[in-house]
Amino acid sequence: MSPVDLEFIKLISMSSPTKIVLIVIDGLGGLPHSETGKTELETANTPNLDELVANGICGLSDPISPGITPGSGPGHLALFGYDPVRFNIGRGVLEALGIDFDLQSRDIAARGNFCTVDKDGLVTDRRAGRISTEECTKLCWLLDGLVIDRVKVLVRPVREHRFIVVFRGEGLNPDVSESDPQQIGVNPKPVTALAPEASRMADITDRFINKAKVLLAEHHPANMLLLRGFSQRPQLPTMNEIYKLKPAVIAVYPMYRGLATLTGMEVLKTGTSIEDELVTLKQNYTNYDFFFLHIKGTDSAGEDGDFDRKVRVIEQVDSVLPGLNSLEPDVIVVTGDHSTPAILKGHSWHPVPTLLYSKWCRPDKVGEFSESACLSGGLGRFPATQIMSLAMANALKLTKFGA
Amino acid sequence: MSPVDLEFIKLISMSSPTKIVLIVIDGLGGLPHSETGKTELETANTPNLDELVANGICGLSDPISPGITPGSGPGHLALFGYDPVRFNIGRGVLEALGIDFDLQSRDIAARGNFCTVDKDGLVTDRRAGRISTEECTKLCWLLDGLVIDRVKVLVRPVREHRFIVVFRGEGLNPDVSESDPQQIGVNPKPVTALAPEASRMADITDRFINKAKVLLAEHHPANMLLLRGFSQRPQLPTMNEIYKLKPAVIAVYPMYRGLATLTGMEVLKTGTSIEDELVTLKQNYTNYDFFFLHIKGTDSAGEDGDFDRKVRVIEQVDSVLPGLNSLEPDVIVVTGDHSTPAILKGHSWHPVPTLLYSKWCRPDKVGEFSESACLSGGLGRFPATQIMSLAMANALKLTKFGA
Repeated sequence: MSPVDLEFIKLISMSSPTKIVLIVIDGLGGLPHSETGKTELETANTPNLDELVANGICGLSDPISPGITPGSGPGHLALFGYDPVRFNIGRGVLEALGIDFDLQSRDIAARGNFCTVDKDGLVTDRRAGRISTEECTKLCWLLDGLVIDRVKVLVRPVREHRFIVVFRGEGLNPDVSESDPQQIGVNPKPVTALAPEASRMADITDRFINKAKVLLAEHHPANMLLLRGFSQRPQLPTMNEIYKLKPAVIAVYPMYRGLATLTGMEVLKTGTSIEDELVTLKQNYTNYDFFFLHIKGTDSAGEDGDFDRKVRVIEQVDSVLPGLNSLEPDVIVVTGDHSTPAILKGHSWHPVPTLLYSKWCRPDKVGEFSESACLSGGLGRFPATQIMSLAMANALKLTKFGA
Repeated sequence: MSPVDLEFIKLISMSSPTKIVLIVIDGLGGLPHSETGKTELETANTPNLDELVANGICGLSDPISPGITPGSGPGHLALFGYDPVRFNIGRGVLEALGIDFDLQSRDIAARGNFCTVDKDGLVTDRRAGRISTEECTKLCWLLDGLVIDRVKVLVRPVREHRFIVVFRGEGLNPDVSESDPQQIGVNPKPVTALAPEASRMADITDRFINKAKVLLAEHHPANMLLLRGFSQRPQLPTMNEIYKLKPAVIAVYPMYRGLATLTGMEVLKTGTSIEDELVTLKQNYTNYDFFFLHIKGTDSAGEDGDFDRKVRVIEQVDSVLPGLNSLEPDVIVVTGDHSTPAILKGHSWHPVPTLLYSKWCRPDKVGEFSESACLSGGLGRFPATQIMSLAMANALKLTKFGA
């Protein structure tokens, strides 16, 4: 499955008044319940989704390729049309996006863990006994704001023992090794340059770690830190450049807003529920021509192994659809960034049920939104990176190629 | 259909106790019988395969791409996940593997034919009247063991007029032209270097051919030889490097064991029947986590145009399946390396019925293992190079890509 060529799309895309709404039900795809033989989506009562699919076209999409389980970063980039392997997003950047940190283009972000070391400096607990978020926040304040050789080091709490470190200054490069040894009973590893141009970065990071060690010494069990996932904001062509869209994101969780901003989407402030998200969509409907609306609850329920809760979140999405339909978007796409089957309690490689509704689609015979029905849908089994081209075409925003 | 990126798989593969069994029914795919309208697989009574498929997922795989008929080499490499066009195996190497010859990494192997030439040296029969294998063996002994400029020349019989020549020494390169003119009434062609670094090889080969001509002069009709397919063992990353598997091959025929050793599989000694192969699997089950089990009879029957015999071999495979199921492998894949329809009496381009059974697959509605049923299977129509990624995913041996 070769990815969509964005340079090609750029050539044929055009601006128009039509509107596209992309609803991403995170972790939508599932696996059958052992008792009923039905997946979460097949179990859910979804009259509105079923009606959309009856008038639309559907299929099963692969975020990366068959057999590959994507993280949230690659899963979403694929939905926006970007090759998720080429444009990989580092762990540090993703964590920074996840706490709404305003990461600048040349910042280097790393994910940090507070950990415990013994008197010889050997790691005895990689998670420092999972200290509270409150304790983590205090320790981050202690470390925040150091300046090393004109590089400012920003430290922000994430959750429990997790935090981020952002290095801001000139001449930095993320190509350095990780200090986290990923095991106990050994010393944290020194950070070394993996490329000649990263030597300054390695040096500054090591100096930061040494200072942090001194500052943390009295704060057992969090008397040391481990860093990994050094990374920089990926330089993506924006969705406006590629598709000539004016795109916006509506998402309750910061990470998904952050991912969307990497593609140049504007963030629309919203509340904490699916209903809030729909209100936000309605309020801003005239100002944008592409909306990415993210639903988190399905993935969380799947990760928790809670089949029934995932079913209920899907039903909740279904219940707000009439409100969406009343806006009469030209194209509605409903899909997921990957599957999260409750019985696997995690992301999986299974292809994702995907529906596209538009006045101009060629409807298939499918009348129900489910994994098994999508198998015989008109979109077939296809790479998720094609979803944007299909949405653009159905919004009549792609011109003919060639004479 | 771009091939699977093995460097990518290497990044996310991990070792685990789960086990994968890949059963390759050589030439499995077929075409309908003119009287019944059913293929070999559709005609065969296969209750056990049908049960596997009822609880599994299936589809049609293309070894190379639609319309392309693969030889055994490319067909199998694709099943092991290797791009069969990029990693092509030379004819000489394949013949050497087919007689269990211990080909070393720098050896150059060529396929040879004994042929007949007239008093002017013009080829009158490219196959020397298909001399007996016994006669071929004697002539090979006559030619074997020459040393030319410190290069040892090994000659081994294959069958009838066919043999292999292996050049072993320093500074050799397979990039030389073939001496076989592929027609009669002309002289054998001189072997010439196709690249500057192959000039020594061309020189030594020509010197060998001239010596052989003298030695064979009195052995009409086999009074000359023709060489082609100069090649070297391809340098493949091993399946252990890519997938972190400990793989083993169970095959009655040497060529398939040889192909498997190119990927680093260990050869398990077995007998001559399908039942023997299953016994070997059982005896070695605890020592490996990946088994490639090769069934030859289907392809031979197909090549012979023997529809009914191919049906019987498929039924025989079906009959040993309960023994395999009792081992409870985590993943079972049943497929072929290509189609060999009896009515075509040869390999063909038709896609290959493929089933995957695992606790973690998303079952489709297919309840019968056949070409027509696989068409609506959950794997769809897909490149055979994806089979390993799918098997690895279903054995929970691939980690998530990206955070």
